[in-house]
Amino acid sequence: MIVDGLQYGFLGREAFAGLRAGGVGCITATLGFWEGAVEALDAVARWRDFARVFTDVFALARSGGEVRAIAGSGRVAVLPGFQNASIFEGRIRFVELFAELGVRVVQLTYNNQNELGGSCYEAADAGLSRFGREVVREMNRTGILIDLSHVGERTSLDVLRQSERPVAVTHANAASFVAHPRNKSDALLKALAAAGGVIGCAAHRHLAGERAAASLEAWCEMVKRTVEIAGIDHVGIGTARGHNSSPGELDWMRMGRWTRNLDYGAGSAAKPGLQPPADWLRELREFAALPEALGRAGFTAAEVDKLTHGNWLRLYDAVFASR
Amino acid sequence: MIVDGLQYGFLGREAFAGLRAGGVGCITATLGFWEGAVEALDAVARWRDFARVFTDVFALARSGGEVRAIAGSGRVAVLPGFQNASIFEGRIRFVELFAELGVRVVQLTYNNQNELGGSCYEAADAGLSRFGREVVREMNRTGILIDLSHVGERTSLDVLRQSERPVAVTHANAASFVAHPRNKSDALLKALAAAGGVIGCAAHRHLAGERAAASLEAWCEMVKRTVEIAGIDHVGIGTARGHNSSPGELDWMRMGRWTRNLDYGAGSAAKPGLQPPADWLRELREFAALPEALGRAGFTAAEVDKLTHGNWLRLYDAVFASR
Repeated sequence: MIVDGLQYGFLGREAFAGLRAGGVGCITATLGFWEGAVEALDAVARWRDFARVFTDVFALARSGGEVRAIAGSGRVAVLPGFQNASIFEGRIRFVELFAELGVRVVQLTYNNQNELGGSCYEAADAGLSRFGREVVREMNRTGILIDLSHVGERTSLDVLRQSERPVAVTHANAASFVAHPRNKSDALLKALAAAGGVIGCAAHRHLAGERAAASLEAWCEMVKRTVEIAGIDHVGIGTARGHNSSPGELDWMRMGRWTRNLDYGAGSAAKPGLQPPADWLRELREFAALPEALGRAGFTAAEVDKLTHGNWLRLYDAVFASR
Repeated sequence: MIVDGLQYGFLGREAFAGLRAGGVGCITATLGFWEGAVEALDAVARWRDFARVFTDVFALARSGGEVRAIAGSGRVAVLPGFQNASIFEGRIRFVELFAELGVRVVQLTYNNQNELGGSCYEAADAGLSRFGREVVREMNRTGILIDLSHVGERTSLDVLRQSERPVAVTHANAASFVAHPRNKSDALLKALAAAGGVIGCAAHRHLAGERAAASLEAWCEMVKRTVEIAGIDHVGIGTARGHNSSPGELDWMRMGRWTRNLDYGAGSAAKPGLQPPADWLRELREFAALPEALGRAGFTAAEVDKLTHGNWLRLYDAVFASR
């Protein structure tokens, strides 16, 4: 069974069938990037309707136990996630409400600084703010997993010091493997591991680099390198695989409402557009090759289990149980 | 004529009569502290209704010319202001809309970091963010005066480097006179002056200190000290005089929706409550003593004119004209 720490875009019946054919039993789905509270409620409600329509292929999960049960029934368990704490709209009391409505993963900042902390794309990062400290405490209490994937390094280190529950980098890689503002320093990965957290290795072309995007073997080498840094208990999969996003949706992910100008997000002027998935993940059923490829890279069967699902499930149990 | 760079609270007919009796011809009124866009629209609309009811004592002003005309007619000109760029809700395109609806002064951050920059009460300040840079450019273009009063030092210095229009510290004092996180370093005041800006000296008890709050003479000494730092063309009045605020409104100003815990804002555990106005400003008609007291402190008549209204009007002309 594979647990994928982050996927985004529109997943229809075909996508869920593809994921199941690939052995994927759980994904964290991105329900929003720049959204405020009402838009986030809209997205939660829309996914509830999707779940009613696609009841035979997926279900929304609220706990590690529910993930196991849904995956065990041959469907995909979806953990609702947001890539921005903008959904709380600066209100400490909204954290509890979104937790109760089933939101399980929230990234503290997306591409820009917000009222909680700094982002990996800002020139500087002042660390976790006064409100940020309140939200970390409240997410701990209400059982929402804190995601640091796009968060700035200093804010991330502050979170790792303060959080009473382990946290996640759902989709990124080691910056020592591919230098990119979105990837994480060895120091951060070690601190994440020391705090019991998990990093989901990304298959996203910008984050994994062309070599690891071109071959599953090279990507598994990258996972191995990440395990050397963070340890076998602290690495998982977080492909950042997209589904059916239009150029307009890509623009929304990058520019939201914060600029009238062009922003390339994780891309660049040289690579401005929507990037295709990794060559070995063009079809979702290709997920199925992953466990064996990790084995060929030298991991034991028990280690492959940790990397493909065990570490995520341990983290989900530790965080969601705190509700 | 006196122009006051900041007052807050509920001003009824009596307050406006008191201000006129004190020779005050213009105030910037605070319409909000933590509000989002819709709440800000509510406040703008409410003040339009106030202006319809109290048409004989005040009017909303959109330009330096309108300030002069309204004050010349024996009424108080009110410039609508907000103490937080939260009113834009992260949307660059909202700046233009609020400008068009008459908002003339917006503080980039209130007491907490937001998506634009750092606040004076945060442990650290990373400077103006990516969105902050966009908003400064847009406020310049649309003719909204940038207020740095509660903004962190590093963000403020970034603004002073970037802004193509002079900016304001509407209500604060020199930190070298009273050490308080809300007061401004000599370096910042000199940079503000070099960029053509104005600081409004505050009569607020926490910011002016007990001595300057106890005597108008001591407060005028503080103004003199501020002029020594920033220069005679860059100092004005920004009392931060409140009107009819309840304890509940004080709690809103301090805690908004960002914490369930106690926060004292500019106060402290030792001085937790709503502070009374400066001893020499308990009644609004006492503003009338200010010009003469500045004269007794050694300022010439022309200098007193600059301090009491000339510098603010010059700034308003320079900023609002850019629309």
